Amino acid sequence: MKKTGKTAKASPLVAVIMGSDSDWPTLEPAVKACEEFGVPVVARVVSAHRTPLDMMRFARTAHTKGIRVIIAGAGGAAHLPGMVASLTPLPVIGVPVESKALKGLDSLLSIVQMPAGIPVATVAIGNGRNAGLLAVQILGLGDGRLRDRIIAFRASMARESRGKTRRLGSRGR
Amino acid sequence: MKKTGKTAKASPLVAVIMGSDSDWPTLEPAVKACEEFGVPVVARVVSAHRTPLDMMRFARTAHTKGIRVIIAGAGGAAHLPGMVASLTPLPVIGVPVESKALKGLDSLLSIVQMPAGIPVATVAIGNGRNAGLLAVQILGLGDGRLRDRIIAFRASMARESRGKTRRLGSRGR
Amino acid sequence: MKKTGKTAKASPLVAVIMGSDSDWPTLEPAVKACEEFGVPVVARVVSAHRTPLDMMRFARTAHTKGIRVIIAGAGGAAHLPGMVASLTPLPVIGVPVESKALKGLDSLLSIVQMPAGIPVATVAIGNGRNAGLLAVQILGLGDGRLRDRIIAFRASMARESRGKTRRLGSRGR
Amino acid sequence: MKKTGKTAKASPLVAVIMGSDSDWPTLEPAVKACEEFGVPVVARVVSAHRTPLDMMRFARTAHTKGIRVIIAGAGGAAHLPGMVASLTPLPVIGVPVESKALKGLDSLLSIVQMPAGIPVATVAIGNGRNAGLLAVQILGLGDGRLRDRIIAFRASMARESRGKTRRLGSRGR
Amino acid sequence: MKKTGKTAKASPLVAVIMGSDSDWPTLEPAVKACEEFGVPVVARVVSAHRTPLDMMRFARTAHTKGIRVIIAGAGGAAHLPGMVASLTPLPVIGVPVESKALKGLDSLLSIVQMPAGIPVATVAIGNGRNAGLLAVQILGLGDGRLRDRIIAFRASMARESRGKTRRLGSRGR
Amino acid sequence: MKKTGKTAKASPLVAVIMGSDSDWPTLEPAVKACEEFGVPVVARVVSAHRTPLDMMRFARTAHTKGIRVIIAGAGGAAHLPGMVASLTPLPVIGVPVESKALKGLDSLLSIVQMPAGIPVATVAIGNGRNAGLLAVQILGLGDGRLRDRIIAFRASMARESRGKTRRLGSRGR
Amino acid sequence: MKKTGKTAKASPLVAVIMGSDSDWPTLEPAVKACEEFGVPVVARVVSAHRTPLDMMRFARTAHTKGIRVIIAGAGGAAHLPGMVASLTPLPVIGVPVESKALKGLDSLLSIVQMPAGIPVATVAIGNGRNAGLLAVQILGLGDGRLRDRIIAFRASMARESRGKTRRLGSRGR
Amino acid sequence: MKKTGKTAKASPLVAVIMGSDSDWPTLEPAVKACEEFGVPVVARVVSAHRTPLDMMRFARTAHTKGIRVIIAGAGGAAHLPGMVASLTPLPVIGVPVESKALKGLDSLLSIVQMPAGIPVATVAIGNGRNAGLLAVQILGLGDGRLRDRIIAFRASMARESRGKTRRLGSRGR
Repeated sequence: MKKTGKTAKASPLVAVIMGSDSDWPTLEPAVKACEEFGVPVVARVVSAHRTPLDMMRFARTAHTKGIRVIIAGAGGAAHLPGMVASLTPLPVIGVPVESKALKGLDSLLSIVQMPAGIPVATVAIGNGRNAGLLAVQILGLGDGRLRDRIIAFRASMARESRGKTRRLGSRGR
Repeated sequence: MKKTGKTAKASPLVAVIMGSDSDWPTLEPAVKACEEFGVPVVARVVSAHRTPLDMMRFARTAHTKGIRVIIAGAGGAAHLPGMVASLTPLPVIGVPVESKALKGLDSLLSIVQMPAGIPVATVAIGNGRNAGLLAVQILGLGDGRLRDRIIAFRASMARESRGKTRRLGSRGR
Repeated sequence: MKKTGKTAKASPLVAVIMGSDSDWPTLEPAVKACEEFGVPVVARVVSAHRTPLDMMRFARTAHTKGIRVIIAGAGGAAHLPGMVASLTPLPVIGVPVESKALKGLDSLLSIVQMPAGIPVATVAIGNGRNAGLLAVQILGLGDGRLRDRIIAFRASMARESRGKTRRLGSRGR
Repeated sequence: MKKTGKTAKASPLVAVIMGSDSDWPTLEPAVKACEEFGVPVVARVVSAHRTPLDMMRFARTAHTKGIRVIIAGAGGAAHLPGMVASLTPLPVIGVPVESKALKGLDSLLSIVQMPAGIPVATVAIGNGRNAGLLAVQILGLGDGRLRDRIIAFRASMARESRGKTRRLGSRGR
Repeated sequence: MKKTGKTAKASPLVAVIMGSDSDWPTLEPAVKACEEFGVPVVARVVSAHRTPLDMMRFARTAHTKGIRVIIAGAGGAAHLPGMVASLTPLPVIGVPVESKALKGLDSLLSIVQMPAGIPVATVAIGNGRNAGLLAVQILGLGDGRLRDRIIAFRASMARESRGKTRRLGSRGR
Repeated sequence: MKKTGKTAKASPLVAVIMGSDSDWPTLEPAVKACEEFGVPVVARVVSAHRTPLDMMRFARTAHTKGIRVIIAGAGGAAHLPGMVASLTPLPVIGVPVESKALKGLDSLLSIVQMPAGIPVATVAIGNGRNAGLLAVQILGLGDGRLRDRIIAFRASMARESRGKTRRLGSRGR
Repeated sequence: MKKTGKTAKASPLVAVIMGSDSDWPTLEPAVKACEEFGVPVVARVVSAHRTPLDMMRFARTAHTKGIRVIIAGAGGAAHLPGMVASLTPLPVIGVPVESKALKGLDSLLSIVQMPAGIPVATVAIGNGRNAGLLAVQILGLGDGRLRDRIIAFRASMARESRGKTRRLGSRGR
Repeated sequence: MKKTGKTAKASPLVAVIMGSDSDWPTLEPAVKACEEFGVPVVARVVSAHRTPLDMMRFARTAHTKGIRVIIAGAGGAAHLPGMVASLTPLPVIGVPVESKALKGLDSLLSIVQMPAGIPVATVAIGNGRNAGLLAVQILGLGDGRLRDRIIAFRASMARESRGKTRRLGSRGR
């Protein structure tokens, strides 16, 4: 799969935001997934709690700047995805970051349990990669070549999975 | 807001599926949300456990029949959203149905905790309406008029919310 | 205890806000507790998700209008208390509203698990009365007469509690 | 106890499947338990999410190839045991694999909370050995010699347990 | 499906036991499932805590009396399934009965989290029917006609499921 | 069983305390269990939070007044059992009262998770009867006649349990 | 405090039992606490699941051999304390051993949630020391010298606690 | 920010207390936060369970010695904050200390779920720093210079957050 996202000068279609740079290990796989599929992507630290006005400005204007999907990761009382979702007409994907004490159960509930009117498309705790893939699938709806890449990706994932039985040693057949 | 979805003969863009007709009270608001925005929608009972082959056939062919987004609701060991997601390149939105004993915590974890490679866009427990709205937001990416309706819907939701202070009685100002 | 809060024309010192008028049964006891102690109080519906800009405006200006303590109640992905806290230098008291499926565990974690820098003073699930009493205690720090009322209130609460043994019937002594 | 399973060319009676080779440390004890009792067993990686069609084919045909019991291990949104169970008339034993964030509570609920009609015989989180022993007990119903081995195994387990008091040192009597 | 279990004088192959007759509504569907498939079944109240010696006697002798599978239901600190399993070479199926305060989460963990050596085949909270069906599947391993009935049952369950789309009204297609 | 506790003028050996008279339905069975065994018992409302000084006085002097065992019930942030335990050399039995939102899980953890040095003998959520029986068992250590009554009680409980199979109807044997 | 328990040839008053010698690090502090107070104590491995008949024999005869209090520790589906309690008229103290996946929450619920009729005096997860202290407190009811030692122990614990402020450094006063 | 708290001889306005010096790593950031803002603060070990009488004396007299806000940290059955709150008219901030087995969920529920009448202002598990900041915000209500410092602190926190995007490397813009 040719990686074009990073080098291409194309305007980003996906924005990956997080409350702190300490969330980067969870969100970097989201960026990489977009890049694998040649989807231009940008990453930013925007904190709902430390820079609420920046967050508001970002969320209200993202759709006017060509962004199509927002991926937001946060931990604990994880307000970033839901607050951004309340300020944009774009679909927002939420990534619950694993927290220290409660292991991300708090992050998950804070992100997924949104009230009627403002959905956040939540993925698994710590699963930034799936957030990136979901963004790609959404963008694939209007882009036949991207759709084909997704289908090819699924096929290669299946091939790789099939090869794993060998690693079980003599019991695997 | 003019409802056109139901009467229009347009080919459905959103498929709402559920494991049993007992999930209908949770999923009907997803259908209604699509209809409010004029998005053609279809609803079906497809059980991952009772009709796995039907489920497979549905999931593998949905994107070839014009479906763009799949909404899948399920309760307990809620496998329907994840299994459909593994068989389609389309984005799949999962709705955890409130279960009797564990109140939907089992449904939520069974839907959201997908492994890397196959995301499910999960919404709140029992919140079919948000699944419908999320589908509309995703479809709005390629449809300027729909995007405008979403923005108008948000504004009307804000107006309605503002009026609620009055209902608090004499303390509300 | 003479109730003066409601009738007095004094500028409110406590603002009680909630995401929806359906939260009023949980928050009304907060208002009543303030009124019991003669603390001027105002109640408003301000939704973090449905009216984020109103919420921002409210939170940024509250301290300039004489408000000293903000009580915010919310349920589910309860972002209101934390977002308001990030926008005001005032102490914010959060009341987790009991939610339908998860019984307020989601509300509690979404409110209390705030990141370092922005605290929310969280009280028990559904316990609006304690939010009001906490606001009164905070205001009592700079108001000797209010402090005396709190001490008197505690004494009357103890007296009432002592009387309850009688209701246990013949076994109570 | 003579191990015959691995060397014997007998057609396997138990199939141990898992979603990924990373689950092997949890499932290998299931294989070993079968081998301890001389029950022919085979292990395979079959992913419900990455190779759903392979999984279907496997599940639909297992009973026609001499397999009598299927052991399926999976973590997170652990769909493998339930999906296989919906496609085979054979008894399926589910092993919840300990997950990173939620420590296998998600795996457990995703496996055990199956809807009426399609049971999965669930064992403890991470307890592949018990899955193997349960398979042996089931096969023992139609095999008197195997039943005798199980009774002997229980007796040896009791003897070993009795010896452990000595390791408590001087306080153990 | 002809019900023969109850009327037939055949020696019971499945024993359904429970700690109290208050668990009967949860366990009766286990009995009925066996009867649906013509599997002779017997039901008894045997309490691990109130009649531990009876429980021991029952568990140690069941396999000598023709019983092939034991289904045990219990709630709270649900020791019955695990204790019986430790005393019999037969497979034991555990049914967590929904408890008042913790809704069966305590029952589930007390039944499923057995130590290595003594498995209990656990089904969903409150799902007696699945316990019965699992017993039937296990007995079907040595009984071709029973296996055929299970396959027929699955087919009829699929047919019934397919008919449910109609009940969704005009949106279902 | 002759009830003597209530009528006898004997000095109470067991004190049953609770934070509020609303806890009485949970604690009354503790009183009744003592009375069934002829153990003199007294019940009182003593709140750790509303009457902390009364609670202290009670706890510090109970052992000087002939009390041998203290049963304390409380809900939510249930501090009463642990605080009393820290102030008395007597064994303290804690009863977690079922709370509204979290169903007594909060009460259970607040009571049972005591730090090293100050144990509380905790019984099941809402199970006042078991608290009473535990007190009787403790008192039975120094009273042969009471010990005999306990043994007789166990036997009668077993007899009653044995009779319950009949209530299962025609399936019970 | 003079340790006499271990060297004294006195018949043990407390029996500390556990399902496996791997539980010894959790239960050893129970033994030590008894020894600190000069209470003769014995430790044994008795498994409810691996040696159920030994467990029964132990539990049924303990009170005839001079044992006054039984301390039982177990993890996971922790049946040992409850089963022993159902077979003895003695008070049984349960110690939930921290389990690998669920950190002892399973152990706690399996031990504490006993049905009416058979109480287990449960202490905190992993807190063997408190089990020992509780046994001492129970024995202190009939032994004035032991009671005095408990009171002295509490005083020394308070003294030690008071000294800890110094370790906070310059901020502690 | 000039640190003046520690060197200044001013009478402390905030008291930080904890049950054991092992809680110091969690509570030290509370002390430091006060010092950052020049708020005189004192730290003490006061155990609700090991020194209940000292705790009572401290709590009943704190407000007479110039203390304005009490910060209390505790873990497990964390009674310290609630007991102190019941004995003082001052606002009490509770810090749930992360516990070994249950990771602070027990501490959180024991602190936050206070009954009506006695609030504890609870912050996140392990978040001593937020407790300190909340105390500063409360004191800022009556101190214009402190209020200004809080506003400046928030601005500097925002600046620092803004700088973090750079650390994401080439993807951050």
